[in-house]
Amino acid sequence: MKINENYKNLNESYLFSTISRRVKDFKAAHPNADVISLGIGDVTLPVCPHVIDAMVTATYDLGAIETFHGYGDEQGYTFLRTAIAKYYAKKHVQIDQSEIFIGDGAKSDLGNILDIFSTDNIVLIPNPVYPVYVDTNLMAGRKIIFANGSIENNFLPMPDPAVHADIIYLCSPNNPTGAVYTHAQLKTWVNYAIANNAVILFDSAYEAFIHDKTLPTSIYQIPNAKKCAIEFCSLSKTAGFTGVRCGYTIVPNELGHLNKMWLRRQTTKFNGVSYIVQRGATAVFNNFSPCKKNIARYMENAKLISATLTKLGIWHTGGKNAPYIWLKCPNGMTSWQFFDYLLEKHNIVGTPGIGFGLDGYFRFTAFATRKNTIRALKRLES
Amino acid sequence: MKINENYKNLNESYLFSTISRRVKDFKAAHPNADVISLGIGDVTLPVCPHVIDAMVTATYDLGAIETFHGYGDEQGYTFLRTAIAKYYAKKHVQIDQSEIFIGDGAKSDLGNILDIFSTDNIVLIPNPVYPVYVDTNLMAGRKIIFANGSIENNFLPMPDPAVHADIIYLCSPNNPTGAVYTHAQLKTWVNYAIANNAVILFDSAYEAFIHDKTLPTSIYQIPNAKKCAIEFCSLSKTAGFTGVRCGYTIVPNELGHLNKMWLRRQTTKFNGVSYIVQRGATAVFNNFSPCKKNIARYMENAKLISATLTKLGIWHTGGKNAPYIWLKCPNGMTSWQFFDYLLEKHNIVGTPGIGFGLDGYFRFTAFATRKNTIRALKRLES
Repeated sequence: MKINENYKNLNESYLFSTISRRVKDFKAAHPNADVISLGIGDVTLPVCPHVIDAMVTATYDLGAIETFHGYGDEQGYTFLRTAIAKYYAKKHVQIDQSEIFIGDGAKSDLGNILDIFSTDNIVLIPNPVYPVYVDTNLMAGRKIIFANGSIENNFLPMPDPAVHADIIYLCSPNNPTGAVYTHAQLKTWVNYAIANNAVILFDSAYEAFIHDKTLPTSIYQIPNAKKCAIEFCSLSKTAGFTGVRCGYTIVPNELGHLNKMWLRRQTTKFNGVSYIVQRGATAVFNNFSPCKKNIARYMENAKLISATLTKLGIWHTGGKNAPYIWLKCPNGMTSWQFFDYLLEKHNIVGTPGIGFGLDGYFRFTAFATRKNTIRALKRLES
Repeated sequence: MKINENYKNLNESYLFSTISRRVKDFKAAHPNADVISLGIGDVTLPVCPHVIDAMVTATYDLGAIETFHGYGDEQGYTFLRTAIAKYYAKKHVQIDQSEIFIGDGAKSDLGNILDIFSTDNIVLIPNPVYPVYVDTNLMAGRKIIFANGSIENNFLPMPDPAVHADIIYLCSPNNPTGAVYTHAQLKTWVNYAIANNAVILFDSAYEAFIHDKTLPTSIYQIPNAKKCAIEFCSLSKTAGFTGVRCGYTIVPNELGHLNKMWLRRQTTKFNGVSYIVQRGATAVFNNFSPCKKNIARYMENAKLISATLTKLGIWHTGGKNAPYIWLKCPNGMTSWQFFDYLLEKHNIVGTPGIGFGLDGYFRFTAFATRKNTIRALKRLES
């Protein structure tokens, strides 16, 4: 038996596993240290009460023969897909039920979608970037080229018309930089994709954090995007679903065979999302305002972090329409040097920018509790 | 952008989707027909009360800041992996926590495990077979060879020492035939795998239906199996989890890099199973007897189906240690002819054997309600 040799091209472990191991080692060596994480993007506020109620009711459904649910609908229950279509209608985007696929999270779908594409495609990935885009393509042996973000382009790289790509990743609001593309910028990307007969894999996991009404919250708000883009979204950050697990992927019918191929992929290698979870997700979309309140609370954390960094004279971006703050490590430190400095000196955990592909930078998130965010910032200011 | 051309080698749609469409069309044409399904393997008994209680408690955990759970442990929560290890200990199999991976179902893991193997492997699949094994390998363009089951070998094909294979699928109790390998037979397979440096992908989704204590319920009950086998299991049929979604995969540390590769695959393309579901699954393993009662109830259905087929002089197997009954279509009918005959004449849905790779055969399942099973059998006897 031969293994997939492409795995040898991967770093030994996934970024967040490495961080978690280093923190664990530090805690073992310093059992009294009071470590605060502004690192991994996990939420801390509980799931909203009306969503909990919906899931409890759904759980009891499964316990009675009259209301029991076995295997669900192939692409997800109609009640959830209807709720998502309505959510999009409010964004002035018309999505048909047949275009919506319910999954257990954007990470799974972003990885698994690659099954339907040839390994013989050139993949264009913005840098810095969520490491999953790179790793999933390395696993399949695809050729990767990068579009580099920098202070000069506000970490919003644009396509180079002279360079051809087949599969394009865009993440807006961006993880890790928190930068958000404008309508005009996304239009340029859509035009580039169509000119190159390319597909855009648009990760909109943080769309609910966009407060500036002039910014697009879905790629489908851009004309012609349905001809070239697949959109991935998640309830992880939107509704505190990191432990509940639900996301969705939109494959427009205009993409022709891609919709049917993804259906074939999912019906062959997936059996749908828990009925309980789909009921909870439906409650999120049918009554969004409690979730919005949680998002607003996280965004206040972002504001506090940004204020402290400004006070300390540290260059940073993001945090306005995204839960991520991207900063330049002070005093010319590398990402891991700053990681060690923060952990050892201030007992604060953050995420090294090199883990996203750019050394000398660092990511904070707004997902810690208010109390811990304030405590961490006080340590930084001291 | 180039698509994965291997998808063109697949049948247009997944077997169960085709059946469901044909039944839907029939019902549309005959709105008054009282159709009973002895077809798709979905359960009908509700989830056991203690499992429901565990999931309700877990749901409330997510609603309070003190008990909220975000992203779970990479391979699944320790409480669930501990419960599974104990379940295996009762089978006299020692499994370490690091070898257990919690997933959303055996179908997902059976498909996704292929990521870690080269496409340049020869895959040996018993026939007839769960179509997912074939389809997932066709999608990746792997070469497939078959080991044919027949009345002569009791639908338990054995390896041909003259034929080399790299990846071997075994499903015992078998879907669709209900046949179960003995210790001696599995030992032959393990020896063959080791001699060929092959890996066995052992699907034990129906192990809980084995009542005959002389039959193995895990491949790891066979000496040396940890050197060559990965085991996949599911709570779908064991605990009525088809709508809850939970399974697990065991990748022994003796398989060296395969364990770490699967960990890398899962941490990159998956984000774990719902906390609610993992609490429910833990309740299953910690108090198994209520689930056993449901299984016993299904097995009584199997006995009734078998008795009717015997009365009608129809050759069949399975149904003794498995929820599936595999029968030879009467009067030389093809599988789809018998499907149409049953649907149109008796308004009964079953699964055509050709969908599993063998024409002229047919599968019934024991998962209908008692009432519907009896009603369907009366129609057959009439």
